[in-house]
Amino acid sequence: MGTVRFGDVYLGDSSATVGKKEMAGPLREWFDLHEEDEYFGMPTFEQAESEMVRRNLAHLFEKMNLKDEDVGVLLGGDLLNQCTGTSFGIKSHSIPFLGLYGACSTIAEGLLVGSMLVQGGFVPSAVAMASSHYCTAERQYRFPPEYGNQRPPTAQYTVTGAGAFYLTRVPSPIRIAEGIIGRIVDGGITDANNMGAAMAPAAADTILRYFGESGRRPEEFDAIVTGDLGREGLELVQELVHQGGLEIAPRHMDGGLLIFDLKKQDMHCGGSGCGCLSTVLGGYLVKRMRAGELKRILAVGTGALLNASTPLQKLSIPGIAHAVCLEAV
Amino acid sequence: MGTVRFGDVYLGDSSATVGKKEMAGPLREWFDLHEEDEYFGMPTFEQAESEMVRRNLAHLFEKMNLKDEDVGVLLGGDLLNQCTGTSFGIKSHSIPFLGLYGACSTIAEGLLVGSMLVQGGFVPSAVAMASSHYCTAERQYRFPPEYGNQRPPTAQYTVTGAGAFYLTRVPSPIRIAEGIIGRIVDGGITDANNMGAAMAPAAADTILRYFGESGRRPEEFDAIVTGDLGREGLELVQELVHQGGLEIAPRHMDGGLLIFDLKKQDMHCGGSGCGCLSTVLGGYLVKRMRAGELKRILAVGTGALLNASTPLQKLSIPGIAHAVCLEAV
Repeated sequence: MGTVRFGDVYLGDSSATVGKKEMAGPLREWFDLHEEDEYFGMPTFEQAESEMVRRNLAHLFEKMNLKDEDVGVLLGGDLLNQCTGTSFGIKSHSIPFLGLYGACSTIAEGLLVGSMLVQGGFVPSAVAMASSHYCTAERQYRFPPEYGNQRPPTAQYTVTGAGAFYLTRVPSPIRIAEGIIGRIVDGGITDANNMGAAMAPAAADTILRYFGESGRRPEEFDAIVTGDLGREGLELVQELVHQGGLEIAPRHMDGGLLIFDLKKQDMHCGGSGCGCLSTVLGGYLVKRMRAGELKRILAVGTGALLNASTPLQKLSIPGIAHAVCLEAV
Repeated sequence: MGTVRFGDVYLGDSSATVGKKEMAGPLREWFDLHEEDEYFGMPTFEQAESEMVRRNLAHLFEKMNLKDEDVGVLLGGDLLNQCTGTSFGIKSHSIPFLGLYGACSTIAEGLLVGSMLVQGGFVPSAVAMASSHYCTAERQYRFPPEYGNQRPPTAQYTVTGAGAFYLTRVPSPIRIAEGIIGRIVDGGITDANNMGAAMAPAAADTILRYFGESGRRPEEFDAIVTGDLGREGLELVQELVHQGGLEIAPRHMDGGLLIFDLKKQDMHCGGSGCGCLSTVLGGYLVKRMRAGELKRILAVGTGALLNASTPLQKLSIPGIAHAVCLEAV
């Protein structure tokens, strides 16, 4: 249960905006926009995130020559408390808006819900979007970056990035073929510096259910891309999926490992955050699909459903993962 | 743009759970469950909110004799940072989950998205849910309740309550007929103690657009119920809608004014929070519809898209409102 199929939903285009560290990483040539200033010219980090969201959406509009009335609904969210990164970033637009919260799985949730709304004929088109910013995430979930806090080896580095995807029934080279809505899985992890381990059981649950329900095999995919499990979570999910009787390792990638050069950039376990899969998918993967290098991919957004208080209250960290299958037409 | 229509989506049943103050108010006889202990037997207020969510969903399951596999998708959210009230409240279930964030409009957003997913044939059924808790909201957005902080006259009182609604294609006495997805409207209000004024422009925008797009007239409704504008926002929205050429005052009610006796209970401008419309609709209004006393209602969920930091950063408070039309069959 949870698998949903679309017939006529296409990806019109996408836009990916990143910060300085992401631009210094291996995927630099694939992003649409970048900004060297962590403040994006704004007075606070939170406003910087909203400004990044605003610019990224403006770029998508520019690329596709869109106006507000061309977008049936905006769907999106981010990691800031009450998702203000998104709401303040889009508030100058006059477009119906559905706020989503799926932690770092948000872009996959947005692509799924947006595709259902477009396929169902409720809206003619949709934009799915998600973002994160290293400095806002650090000060909200851990310590203000100015403290120069020491990070444990399992820690990941929140991507400063925003991705936006235009979904439409107008045929284009990439189709949103199907997907699966994730369930909450709690593996009992209580270490807020080990998100990969917290999210891996949910990712494995979603991957196993997807292949079980859809009848597809991993070999039919050029890439199975988890969002931001990092080095720790990558191995765990492969092991859990293997225990479930499937092998994904040969074609499994992780957004958090693709976006940074872990050693050169001193990134511990890799990138994370809503902006990770959003920009890796919206920048790198989608463009490789357009270039004919990837035919079919499964993007598995992975989220950890904690907040800054729950680990302090000794609660474990539930995970969730939503998956979307994109196909070159 | 934004209006969506359903033909075959029915409300199977609903459940509404509240706290002590709500049980002392005028709607006491309409709720399903209540709890006198603000902690719901748990060690922290946040865990209390999740326990309330858990009990309320369990009650809906009990009323309808449901199992996890009878629910195609759960959609929900709350006011806690990263929506942990909901995620921790439902994590013992194994049901596909879509996290939503629409501030106090969340239940209307959930009913809309859930109805689209059911009508579109993507899931056989859905549960939409939302909650809030006075003590968690106070300490997260304002001051811990233990401080005994003085509240200004425009302040509202967050409802301790959870509502859940089962949506299905199996005919029942109440149909989810149509609805409209809200847009963000920022009226420039910067006073975080005047949510009614911050949300009224968005509510008016949604109400005017709904009647404009649907071709319906306010007279066709037995009640137009805004979620939690309170006394201040109630007058504002009526005035703004009047300026737009419509009169809703004779049939306009507000959840925040229905749930408490403002004078006797010393509730300043009235109730608020995701739990307000969730319990007023899921307890009171839906049961009056079942009793044949109300034929058609428009439930307008109203949300303020701030967090605890945005007013401190001198940002204004954007509002959003989603509306759902329920009809007795």
